[in-house]
Amino acid sequence: MKYSVIGQRVPLEDAFEKVTGSIKYATDIKLPEMLYAKVLRSPYPHANVVNIDTSKAEALPGVEAVITPDDVPEEEWLEESFNYYGRVLHDTVRFVGDEVAAVAAINEDVAEEALDLIEVEYEELPSVFTIEDAMKPGSVQVNPHGNIRQPSIVEWGNLEVGFKEAEFIFENQTTMESQQHAPIGLNACIAQWENDKLTIWVSSHTPFEIRDVVARYLKMPLSKVRVIGLPTGGSFGLFWLNVFHFIPIFLAKKARKPVKFELSRQEIFATVKRRDVPISQVKLGVKKDGSFTVIHMKHYFDNGAYGFKSNPYESESDLWVRNAKHGKFEFYGVSTNLLTAGCMRGVGDMSESFCVEQVIDKAAEKLGMSPLDIRLKNHSRAGDRVRGDMFFYLATGLPVPEKYLSSSALDKCIKEGAKAIGWEKKWKGWGKPVAVNGNKRRGIGMAVASHCCGQRYLGCPSVIVKINHDGSVNLITGVARLGQGVETSQAQICAEELGVPIESIKGTHGDTDSCPWNQATVASTCAHITGIATRAAAADAKRKICELAATVIGALPENLDIKEGKIFVKGQPRTSIPITDITDKILTADGTAYGPTIIGSSAKNIPLSPVARMFMAHFVEVDVDTTTGKVDIIKYVAAHDSGTIINPSIAESQVVGGIFMGAGIALSERLIFDEANGQVLNPNFVDYKLLRAYDMPVPEVIFVENVDPVGAFGIKGIGEGVVAPVPTAIVQAIHNATGIRFNSIPVTPEKLLNALKNSQLS
Amino acid sequence: MKYSVIGQRVPLEDAFEKVTGSIKYATDIKLPEMLYAKVLRSPYPHANVVNIDTSKAEALPGVEAVITPDDVPEEEWLEESFNYYGRVLHDTVRFVGDEVAAVAAINEDVAEEALDLIEVEYEELPSVFTIEDAMKPGSVQVNPHGNIRQPSIVEWGNLEVGFKEAEFIFENQTTMESQQHAPIGLNACIAQWENDKLTIWVSSHTPFEIRDVVARYLKMPLSKVRVIGLPTGGSFGLFWLNVFHFIPIFLAKKARKPVKFELSRQEIFATVKRRDVPISQVKLGVKKDGSFTVIHMKHYFDNGAYGFKSNPYESESDLWVRNAKHGKFEFYGVSTNLLTAGCMRGVGDMSESFCVEQVIDKAAEKLGMSPLDIRLKNHSRAGDRVRGDMFFYLATGLPVPEKYLSSSALDKCIKEGAKAIGWEKKWKGWGKPVAVNGNKRRGIGMAVASHCCGQRYLGCPSVIVKINHDGSVNLITGVARLGQGVETSQAQICAEELGVPIESIKGTHGDTDSCPWNQATVASTCAHITGIATRAAAADAKRKICELAATVIGALPENLDIKEGKIFVKGQPRTSIPITDITDKILTADGTAYGPTIIGSSAKNIPLSPVARMFMAHFVEVDVDTTTGKVDIIKYVAAHDSGTIINPSIAESQVVGGIFMGAGIALSERLIFDEANGQVLNPNFVDYKLLRAYDMPVPEVIFVENVDPVGAFGIKGIGEGVVAPVPTAIVQAIHNATGIRFNSIPVTPEKLLNALKNSQLS
Repeated sequence: MKYSVIGQRVPLEDAFEKVTGSIKYATDIKLPEMLYAKVLRSPYPHANVVNIDTSKAEALPGVEAVITPDDVPEEEWLEESFNYYGRVLHDTVRFVGDEVAAVAAINEDVAEEALDLIEVEYEELPSVFTIEDAMKPGSVQVNPHGNIRQPSIVEWGNLEVGFKEAEFIFENQTTMESQQHAPIGLNACIAQWENDKLTIWVSSHTPFEIRDVVARYLKMPLSKVRVIGLPTGGSFGLFWLNVFHFIPIFLAKKARKPVKFELSRQEIFATVKRRDVPISQVKLGVKKDGSFTVIHMKHYFDNGAYGFKSNPYESESDLWVRNAKHGKFEFYGVSTNLLTAGCMRGVGDMSESFCVEQVIDKAAEKLGMSPLDIRLKNHSRAGDRVRGDMFFYLATGLPVPEKYLSSSALDKCIKEGAKAIGWEKKWKGWGKPVAVNGNKRRGIGMAVASHCCGQRYLGCPSVIVKINHDGSVNLITGVARLGQGVETSQAQICAEELGVPIESIKGTHGDTDSCPWNQATVASTCAHITGIATRAAAADAKRKICELAATVIGALPENLDIKEGKIFVKGQPRTSIPITDITDKILTADGTAYGPTIIGSSAKNIPLSPVARMFMAHFVEVDVDTTTGKVDIIKYVAAHDSGTIINPSIAESQVVGGIFMGAGIALSERLIFDEANGQVLNPNFVDYKLLRAYDMPVPEVIFVENVDPVGAFGIKGIGEGVVAPVPTAIVQAIHNATGIRFNSIPVTPEKLLNALKNSQLS
Repeated sequence: MKYSVIGQRVPLEDAFEKVTGSIKYATDIKLPEMLYAKVLRSPYPHANVVNIDTSKAEALPGVEAVITPDDVPEEEWLEESFNYYGRVLHDTVRFVGDEVAAVAAINEDVAEEALDLIEVEYEELPSVFTIEDAMKPGSVQVNPHGNIRQPSIVEWGNLEVGFKEAEFIFENQTTMESQQHAPIGLNACIAQWENDKLTIWVSSHTPFEIRDVVARYLKMPLSKVRVIGLPTGGSFGLFWLNVFHFIPIFLAKKARKPVKFELSRQEIFATVKRRDVPISQVKLGVKKDGSFTVIHMKHYFDNGAYGFKSNPYESESDLWVRNAKHGKFEFYGVSTNLLTAGCMRGVGDMSESFCVEQVIDKAAEKLGMSPLDIRLKNHSRAGDRVRGDMFFYLATGLPVPEKYLSSSALDKCIKEGAKAIGWEKKWKGWGKPVAVNGNKRRGIGMAVASHCCGQRYLGCPSVIVKINHDGSVNLITGVARLGQGVETSQAQICAEELGVPIESIKGTHGDTDSCPWNQATVASTCAHITGIATRAAAADAKRKICELAATVIGALPENLDIKEGKIFVKGQPRTSIPITDITDKILTADGTAYGPTIIGSSAKNIPLSPVARMFMAHFVEVDVDTTTGKVDIIKYVAAHDSGTIINPSIAESQVVGGIFMGAGIALSERLIFDEANGQVLNPNFVDYKLLRAYDMPVPEVIFVENVDPVGAFGIKGIGEGVVAPVPTAIVQAIHNATGIRFNSIPVTPEKLLNALKNSQLS
């Protein structure tokens, strides 16, 4: 189907503001009389706070409020999605950097000085930093709810039967170091009280989640908490709801003035959140012909000090269900005295995939199959029963319905990606590198992955489409602008459905007072799930316009259509009236003109089944320098099934960005924790090694045409999943080049050289 | 009928912000990099601008943009309601203070300094300052469209027949000096361009009218112009669309930075707008029994330099149609070289009433009737055919429909007001004062008036009611917060209809991006007309909630009702479910939970007929000091039919405030124009004499119970009309005290003493 606006490379709505630097992030907000907050953080990984003396700090001129655990509720604040536990300030501290007290002062210098004047007496407690240690019976109890979170289990068939049916059984265990989200933007939050009303300015993924949690915690009506969601400078999970958002709220209440809390780069690296450290174990049953019979995964991940996650997205558990009629995925979240861990781009789908993809390659090698063929034989197809995405049901307690996969073109992704990288010519078989040239060994690798396209957890988004008298449109949604271009892609969906030019649409997003509820802009929610709501709201407005136009044109409303701002009888596009004939002099039921503004709103529920997933196959060619241990990416191809592509420029950017992030995770990115106290030792862009634009060639991106039956215009999602297959594909290419299969990443030059020493190549 | 929320003295939603000074007006807005504008104004009342040299001003460090008539469109900007004409800057100036050039600089001092460096060469033209002179054949032409605006005529029956039927004919001519709105707030407007998007922060009556006019003038889609309507510090007509709003827009475009234009107190008094100077002539035909047969009014009012009004509200023309089957009201707007005149609280209804009420008293005196009886005999009743309120039809060109009066309790107002002031005891007959005590003479007077309850011009307002998961509500409207409490009264209407507590409602008002269109908050529009839309939007949300609740409760949706946040089967309020059972886990058509946010929106048109008017009867007792000429108000009673009263505290405040304003107009307020050049000579609160709180006792306010069939819950309107009868009532009381009937106001001590000199009292 040919669309007018969908599929066009429409420029980003906020491009001008970004290029000229005039866009406003939370860091840019400055209110009259605003105070500045600083937080006193624990120097110990685990300790009781025995006493806090704030008298000297309070006496410092310019200090207007000091809060300690005594000033915040005894109760825990708890995100409904169960990712966190804990109070706002802590009388038992659980990691180096934990929030103990906070100050609001006339400027940041005074606030900083006041922190030094707060005297805290600690009683040190033993601490624990690894999943293994924290799970041992009798371990130090980090989390008062227990170190091990109630596991989340996805199970089908019967493991025993599955393994009996298998002719081979392969096992694997992997891990990876922790990463930091490392966006360029800074976290900031400004809180202002006006009597019983609270306003929060915040660059965030999730204005509505912040509103909902803050209102519940403070026992306020949702209407009295206004969160003004501002754009973020990147995020990748970091600008989600966090305990730091509460600090300016309590300070502002006490100081009776607005308070801004802007985190330093060091605090953003070392005190907000990070990616978990996983231990993944998989056991795969396979028949001689390569078909899987059973898959059993145990996935442990550390929640750090205040994480409370039980369930990383389990798209991986649904990726291989075509032949594997038996399976079990077990997820264990474990508390430690490290910085809190939580969702970061790709979440469990990356770490689980890193384990599963390698066991699949082990099987392929054993059976003499190519990595492509074994995947083509086993991956899930449209109509397959899927069981993952349990987030919603865990959060709500609702029974899990039968769900079926809506669409999949993973086979096409594999085939088209392979063609683009030149697989047939370059793949010489297991143990055979693409080329050897002196100390350089070239290898090729590939991996596949899947990811949810948003999850309908805690509610369906709504959207409002307001038609102005001149036919232009205000599109009002609760999405968050993370730099992913959501304001532009939603406008394209609206323009396409409504039949108006994209230039006439302007978005209002993320203000919880005026925008309808939207779930957190996480997990690739917007394009697919908010997209359905945007289309429905536009369709509602269109229906209302056509109803009014029907009497003017002399046709049934259902026979009318709108394109390029013109209303016409379907099939007769040449005789039309401009949309302004209706919107500018809105006709009403009593035949008079100038009626109320046309408002479209979505009342359409997102279906529970079929459920959409994005699929992708990534291919990479690397050069491994056996002298320096350095891995160079030579060529990268990413083939994606994300359904209909709304805006190729936006989609390509998301893929390319995700590949750079995934490659960083594979080769260089890692948070270094002090062995003695768990403190983050590299909390900055100098010591935390991100890949830069010149570190690898621009990947080639292929979108496989595939119209999903659930999404608006067949749209699925893209941003979050991209990162999932990247580390595996790179590690597989290193394996192809060197014969070494790395079960932990990043594969730093040091690690590679060490491994080479023990290999037959050295 | 007993309501839950309507009729309650709910505290003002923004009371806290106002009391603590934290509320934000446009003057409080400060943006990064913002520049400050100043305007160069003409020193001549009428002149051609021959040359402007801005080179020295542009060279001044800190100046970032200078604009002259060359930088603004040749075309006129023209408000759709036809109140203004003219360009943004003028190469022919038409009053002292006219806008010639403007500067944007880094601060106001530099901008001011730059103004002095602009060299303008003028060619002086002859000028004209009075209606009489401007209407003379061969007069100086002020207005290129002609000095006399196309007259607006309201006519019924046949004048000739009417005067033939009359047994007496009475005539009268009145005038009044010009007043200034004199709100405590300051006009300010900030404009910011972001590529093709324009944002305007403004304290205004009418965010949507500014958006619509600016977009049309700049040929932009309405969606790309965002007006953020902020509260005003009073207004009374002053914070309406004005040419000064365009100045920061053009400066910001040229400077590529946001520009703020904050008018000085002097500019607000002398350069924005003022009340017109009217000449009203009336001829009334009356039978012996006191019944009117015909009324003929000619009403001339000056438009000043750039006013373009043809039609002050003509509620007065509809007030006496019960017996007077013949009538004609002619309205002539005339241009002069004075400060632009335009709508100010009460508009034509005050000046026309001042003329008509006195001719009625002349008739009553002649016929020996009391002022009460002649009015009771002749005033319009529900069902009477009315013909005024032609604004909408003049603006749109639509045919005027047959309209009938919806309700009237003016008779009750007269009777209850008379009772409260003690009329029977105090009124001793024509020419007989209430009391004489030395040099003090006490008199009693009364007057009645009517005013429209908003006019449906250019469109019907829409409202959005957003239901949050906890059942709390965001009420989203395009109304303007002028201090009249509209945010609170609309919330009460919403709470009443929806059946939720008032505390759970919060308003979002006046942002043209996120709020639906609302007509200008003028002419007492909000309570009646926006109220109908608010009730309809709340009813739409309620219907959706009841539809979802129907399956849970097991009843038909139409049999359900909501009160105090509980849903129940009508007639069975004891068995109910909390509204959160529906809103918190919104059930959907497929039986699953967590559906989209419930959005109610109004699609209800305001009926064209019957049409609602507010009515009032005011009574006042004064002491006239024949030595000093000072008039003291001893007691004031105002009885109002405004239909159902939403919030007595708000309504009383509006009445009391209006009486103080009207009393000021009667006794002290007047703009003084320089005879030589028309310049305003008293542009400040020292020389312009407002009444203050201690200048008269607090009036007694009576609301006559009367449920209007059109308004939501029977609500009509109140704020604008209040001022209309006040000057007349006071002047009648002076007449009762002294026997002198003043045909021009204010009755200053000087004027009173002069009149006394010539009267038999002196």
